[in-house]
Amino acid sequence: LRLWLDGALVDAAAARIDPADRGFLLGDGLFETMRADGGRVVRLARHLARLRQGAGALGIGLALDDDAIARALETTLEANGQGRGGAALRLTLTRGPGPRGLLPPSDASPTLMIAAFALPPLRPPAQAVIVRGVARNQGSITSRLKGLGYLDNILALREAQAGGSDEALLLNAAGRLACASAANLFLVADGRLLTPPPEEGVLPGITRGRLLELAPTLRIACSERPLEPGAIDAAQEAFVSSSLGLVRPVARIGSRLLPAPGPVTARLTAALLADPG
Amino acid sequence: LRLWLDGALVDAAAARIDPADRGFLLGDGLFETMRADGGRVVRLARHLARLRQGAGALGIGLALDDDAIARALETTLEANGQGRGGAALRLTLTRGPGPRGLLPPSDASPTLMIAAFALPPLRPPAQAVIVRGVARNQGSITSRLKGLGYLDNILALREAQAGGSDEALLLNAAGRLACASAANLFLVADGRLLTPPPEEGVLPGITRGRLLELAPTLRIACSERPLEPGAIDAAQEAFVSSSLGLVRPVARIGSRLLPAPGPVTARLTAALLADPG
Repeated sequence: LRLWLDGALVDAAAARIDPADRGFLLGDGLFETMRADGGRVVRLARHLARLRQGAGALGIGLALDDDAIARALETTLEANGQGRGGAALRLTLTRGPGPRGLLPPSDASPTLMIAAFALPPLRPPAQAVIVRGVARNQGSITSRLKGLGYLDNILALREAQAGGSDEALLLNAAGRLACASAANLFLVADGRLLTPPPEEGVLPGITRGRLLELAPTLRIACSERPLEPGAIDAAQEAFVSSSLGLVRPVARIGSRLLPAPGPVTARLTAALLADPG
Repeated sequence: LRLWLDGALVDAAAARIDPADRGFLLGDGLFETMRADGGRVVRLARHLARLRQGAGALGIGLALDDDAIARALETTLEANGQGRGGAALRLTLTRGPGPRGLLPPSDASPTLMIAAFALPPLRPPAQAVIVRGVARNQGSITSRLKGLGYLDNILALREAQAGGSDEALLLNAAGRLACASAANLFLVADGRLLTPPPEEGVLPGITRGRLLELAPTLRIACSERPLEPGAIDAAQEAFVSSSLGLVRPVARIGSRLLPAPGPVTARLTAALLADPG
């Protein structure tokens, strides 16, 4: 495994993150997970726009322009023999090393790391459950950023697994539906596609955003709106979306069984796979 | 600077955090910040109990017993010439390296790092403001754990600073008072000490806990209870508490000026400084 780290390819076994890196000490950074198909990064421009917006919100400088990041991603894929196949890419941006304390140094030198992995295997439809130990925090801007702090998500997935499920659905602090452990949540009710808006404590996923654009072209009406947990009982289909997993049907939420995939989910999946991105 | 890292002292300039460490990638870990006075770690047993409880909640193994951790802290202090003076210690525990994805490997090998720093200088009374961009998430167990994800806290302090203050007060998702950027919040109203309980999205600070024990011995009544922001208007004193800063009076919250320190704050500060811990 070879990593791209601060401008150079390095063997992962030798690559060093500084123990004073604020990404390590304080979760002071962001990441993007991307899918490469045939050596091409899917919806790259959107990922980079989100990264740049998040970096701006945190005040983290991003020295490379989009072309340079695209080249670094390509270089990483090729260095790992994934220049032509499918791969999972993770780009990590942190504020870099700093002295003790919360306040960043004025001369921070951000850390930028890219790693490439084999694509995870396609998983069967999700067995999901609403978890209770953690909640999405719609009162914080960080709930709409892909920050490094994923402890809530990890605990959510562990709670789901402990109860015999393999995906977690998280409520927000107001008790409304927010998202899955590392994916966005969609319901289909009476033929209409429903998903909570970012203001509900939801990361604006790249695949989510593209699905909301594709649905109208398929004459599938869609609404971004707050969803009470009871919306699940009224839904005929459910799926989660992510950049790596694309669309994953949900076959069960708690005790409610759902067709997986249902007809609307199947049409959206086909449209997404055919989308040049 | 020499660090204690996974069982050995290493030069910070050479110490390496694995780029696959889940602390770095996902904030999957905990930390403790401790104060050493005269080479002795203040309230060490309480810090280690909290660390152990948090590690249990996350399912992170902690191979060392309390005595071994105490020796590692002492070794780190001595290696940095702080064996007899005052120092700030930071212990970081992560789940260690793992493959891509949220789920921890079953054979995770946790990372344990200890760093020692000079004590930060005593700061003047805080100029505080209630920030709006972030909120404490009382719906998540992680709001009561000292997890690595401090992005909300960083953004809170940046927001305060941008507005000309030097400390941030955070509300929780229900709009009630929670804490400061990296400290607990206390108000004094009609001679009574008030602070929100952990259920409000508050880290149960070690100094906070000790203050709640000391107050009754000084015949200062105290209550842990939810506090609306309006409680500030009814308060005659306010201070924040932390393991490094101990008690820091608050001289201003928004436009409200307060005596800093007020008489109750002064008595509690004196009691805390005299406390063997």
